[in-house]
Formats: sequence, C-alpha cells, structure tokens
Amino acid sequence: MKTYLDCIPCFFTQALNAARLAGADAAVQKDILDRVAAAMPAFSLTETPPAMGKVIHDIIKVAVGSADPYRAVKDESNRYALSLYPAMEKAVLKSDDPLMTALTVAIAGNIIDYGAPSGFDIRAELDRALDTGFAVCDYAPFAARAKGTRSLLYLGDNAGEVVFDRLLIEELRRDVLPKDAAVTFAVREAPIINDATVEDARACGIDGIATLISSGCEAPGTILGECTERFRELFECADMIISKGQGNFESLDAGDRPVFFLLRAKCPVVAEHLGCGVGDMILKAPG
Amino acid sequence: MKTYLDCIPCFFTQALNAARLAGADAAVQKDILDRVAAAMPAFSLTETPPAMGKVIHDIIKVAVGSADPYRAVKDESNRYALSLYPAMEKAVLKSDDPLMTALTVAIAGNIIDYGAPSGFDIRAELDRALDTGFAVCDYAPFAARAKGTRSLLYLGDNAGEVVFDRLLIEELRRDVLPKDAAVTFAVREAPIINDATVEDARACGIDGIATLISSGCEAPGTILGECTERFRELFECADMIISKGQGNFESLDAGDRPVFFLLRAKCPVVAEHLGCGVGDMILKAPG
Repeated sequence: MKTYLDCIPCFFTQALNAARLAGADAAVQKDILDRVAAAMPAFSLTETPPAMGKVIHDIIKVAVGSADPYRAVKDESNRYALSLYPAMEKAVLKSDDPLMTALTVAIAGNIIDYGAPSGFDIRAELDRALDTGFAVCDYAPFAARAKGTRSLLYLGDNAGEVVFDRLLIEELRRDVLPKDAAVTFAVREAPIINDATVEDARACGIDGIATLISSGCEAPGTILGECTERFRELFECADMIISKGQGNFESLDAGDRPVFFLLRAKCPVVAEHLGCGVGDMILKAPG
Repeated sequence: MKTYLDCIPCFFTQALNAARLAGADAAVQKDILDRVAAAMPAFSLTETPPAMGKVIHDIIKVAVGSADPYRAVKDESNRYALSLYPAMEKAVLKSDDPLMTALTVAIAGNIIDYGAPSGFDIRAELDRALDTGFAVCDYAPFAARAKGTRSLLYLGDNAGEVVFDRLLIEELRRDVLPKDAAVTFAVREAPIINDATVEDARACGIDGIATLISSGCEAPGTILGECTERFRELFECADMIISKGQGNFESLDAGDRPVFFLLRAKCPVVAEHLGCGVGDMILKAPG
C-alpha cells in the first residue's frame, strides 16, 4: 500500500504518542516532532507507511537515547498476553469451530498496538471480537489452503499479540495442517515501537511450535527489499503465508504469492483502502 | 492560549483539509504539507495556534495562486446563513428568554468553521444547541455587564456565522444594551480560511446595526500585537468585549479587559484547556 496524504498528519500523531510512551519530556517531544517535520519533504508517497514509521522511530530512538524505548511496555504486553493464554486456549478447544475461534482470538490480540492512535483493553476486545465476527472473512479458502500446506510462513506483528498467534498456529497444527508441515514465524530485525522481535516471540513461546526467524526488516512491517535472502526465499517458496496486522498489510507487496492478510483495520485510510470500517476484522485471501 | 504539542498533528490535518477545500490537486496538497513541515521547526509553542494558522494559510494561498481560496465557500455560507435568518429571528422573538436564545443561536452558528476538522450541518446544530445548553454559562454576569455597556466591541469569527452574531447583537440592542450604546464589529484584515472579512460581514448585514471594522489581524484569530492602533484603542476602552469562536479564544490575550468568550470547544486541546468536552458550548465571563 502506498502512503496516502491523510497518513501525514497521522505520522505526527504517532510520533507524539510514541515519544510520550518512550518517556520523552515535552522539550524532547517537540524536538522529535521538529525532526519528523524536517524529514517529511524527503519522504515519497510511493513508499509505504511503515517506511516512514522507521524514519520516525529512528528519530525517537536517537532523541531518547535508547535502541529499545518500549522494552518495558513489550515485557508487560508479553506477560499480560501469557496470563490470558489458558482461558483463550480453553475457548478454542471448547469451540464448535476451533479454527474460526482461533482466528478470532488471533485478530483480537492485534489490538495490542501502540503504533495506531488508540489505547487497548484486550479482554474486552476478545469478547467483542468473538461477538462481532469478521467484516471480510475468506475462511473457506483459508482453511482449504491450510489443509494442503506443507510450508507455512507466518509474519508476526506486535509483542504480546504473538501469544494469540501461537494459539492460531497450535490450532492449525492440531486440526488443519498436514502433520509434517513446517511452520516459520518471522519477526522484525530490531526493536521498533512494540513490534515483536525474536526475543519477544521467544518469550511468548513461539519457538516451541515454529521455527523463529527475523525477517531482516527494521521497519514496523515487512518491506521485501529490506528483508534477508533467507526470508525472501521462504516467502517465494512457502505454500501459504499469513500476514498479521496492519503494518505488514501496509508494507508487504504480496505479488502473486498466497498471502492471507489477517488484521484489524485500525485507521480510516486502511479501512477505505479495504472497503471496510475502522476497527473491522479482516481475513483476506490472495487475489 | 499557547500552542500544545497535540496541536502539531492537527496543523497538518487542517492544512490538508484546507488545501483540498481550496481545490489543490494531490501533488499540490503534498507540496503544501511539505512546506508546512518545513515551517514547523521554526514555530515556537509560546505562540498561539492561530499564529501557525496564518503560516499555513499563507502557504496554501501561494500554492494555489489565490489570495482568497475560499471565496466561493464563504459566499455560500453567507447565503445559507441569511436564508436561516427569518426562522432564527422568530425563535429569538418568540422565546421566553430572548437573550439566552440569541446566545444559543450565535454559538450554534459557530459550527460554520472549515478550520476545525469536521463537517457541519447548521440546522441540526441549531436544534442540538437549543436542546443541549451551555457547558459553561456565565449568563448572569454577561447580562449584567451588557446592561451597563455604552461601548461594545464584538470580535467576529467565520463568514456566514456573522448572521447569527447579528441576531445576538440585535437582541442586545432590543432588550439589554442602553439605547445609545455604540457597537463595533471587528473582523479579519484579509481573507484567511473562511474567516469573516469586512466584505462578509457586510454581506451578512452587520453594517446596518454596528460599526464595521477590520481588527488589522491577518491570522485566524485576534493577536493584539498585529492589530491596528484603532482596534487596540477600542479594545482598551470598550465597556464590554464579546470574543466569538475558538480562533479568537486561542489567540486573544484578554489581560484585565472585560472579555466574554462565546465559543464551541472544537478540539480536545481547547476542551481540556477549558475543562469541558469537545463540542461543548461555552459562555465564559472574565477572570
């Protein structure tokens, strides 16, 4: 997805929110906004929003003097999500349609996102998600594709949220994927906002059920040109790719690859791009 | 009021909305946002938001090659407001408390504002305003002050809205002000967004009931340091000053002058500054 003009004011909102979350005082917040402003004219709308996200968060890292300003926030997200794991696992196992429930749990977990301009309450979101259902729901193609998949690539999104991705992968392994299917879970190369890195995914227990790799991308998304060769090979060869969250959706050029996008549309621009409402849950098949 | 950090993202939203309203194409919109970004680091938060508003709208005027990009929009606002005048006058005249109704009509008219990030529907707003009432309502001091006022200075805000200000001034003249009171209605020196200029105020019929002057200020508010000597003398000597709308509230340093602020709080920053909710109607006495 290219960057829309309406993304530009939002970049400043995100920068301000992120600066505050990183503990910057008012003077540093102003300095961060000024540096984002100074960087804006060089940014082309043909780039994706997460490309500018990287510019913004690099500015914040320098300004607050930390390479991982949200470490404590991410630790807390991981802990909180893990505390919800048993109840969510029970919901999946007891469901009449465990795959559908696991998909819903995974998307509900996507509410953990400090990049989008809103707070979150995961428990309430889980209940809401289970009640509401998906606005776009390519469930049948998703299930059919998974059944024949020997090699699954799953693109993670935020820390904490990975626990809910784990529940979906566990359900896929239990009831849908061939028994010998290989699952690879890819995360960001370096800390950016509260996006999951290898450290977070490990804390969330992904390494026990999937091969855990970095995509190589340092933006809050998956920009193929910035990914490692290993990741790009996996992307080219996987039987199925699950792209989680808005950052991956905004940045990933799926081409003709079998990418299923699983996300909540968190802003008006993405919602309009998808033809849905803000807050809607989306499971979108390729093509 | 100083500029808050939260105003900065909103400056870009305002610039984008205003650029579109001025008919700029996408490339010009991007150029405008880039120029606003380039101007941002030089802007001090000790200045008021309308001071940055002037910078933004000067950029837009140059970019679209028009000194008055919203002329057609303002003409339409003036016409539309005038078409509502008879019904609104009737509402005031039939009211058990004509002054209160006129104040409410005046504040409802303040919904005509392309500077704040929302659309408007005046008829619906008038009904809503009459139902809802004021969140802050220093009505008694307002009425008492007006009774003893021989010289009233009224600071106008937007085109079209002036028709509703006229209804308030007519009611003040009819029932409250001394018969020989002098009323001066001040507007912006030059076109900026849809703010009323002398031309608009005349179109709205103000010149028949008040002395019409320019404040001298070219920002979308009243920055005393930029006003004419004549305006500042009036401001210093008037028995009562009515400041209409958020732009005047944000920019006017009332000092110890008897300024009554009449506005809707249109954004979260101003609402928090005033201790009210977004959309609340305010009639605020001095001190």
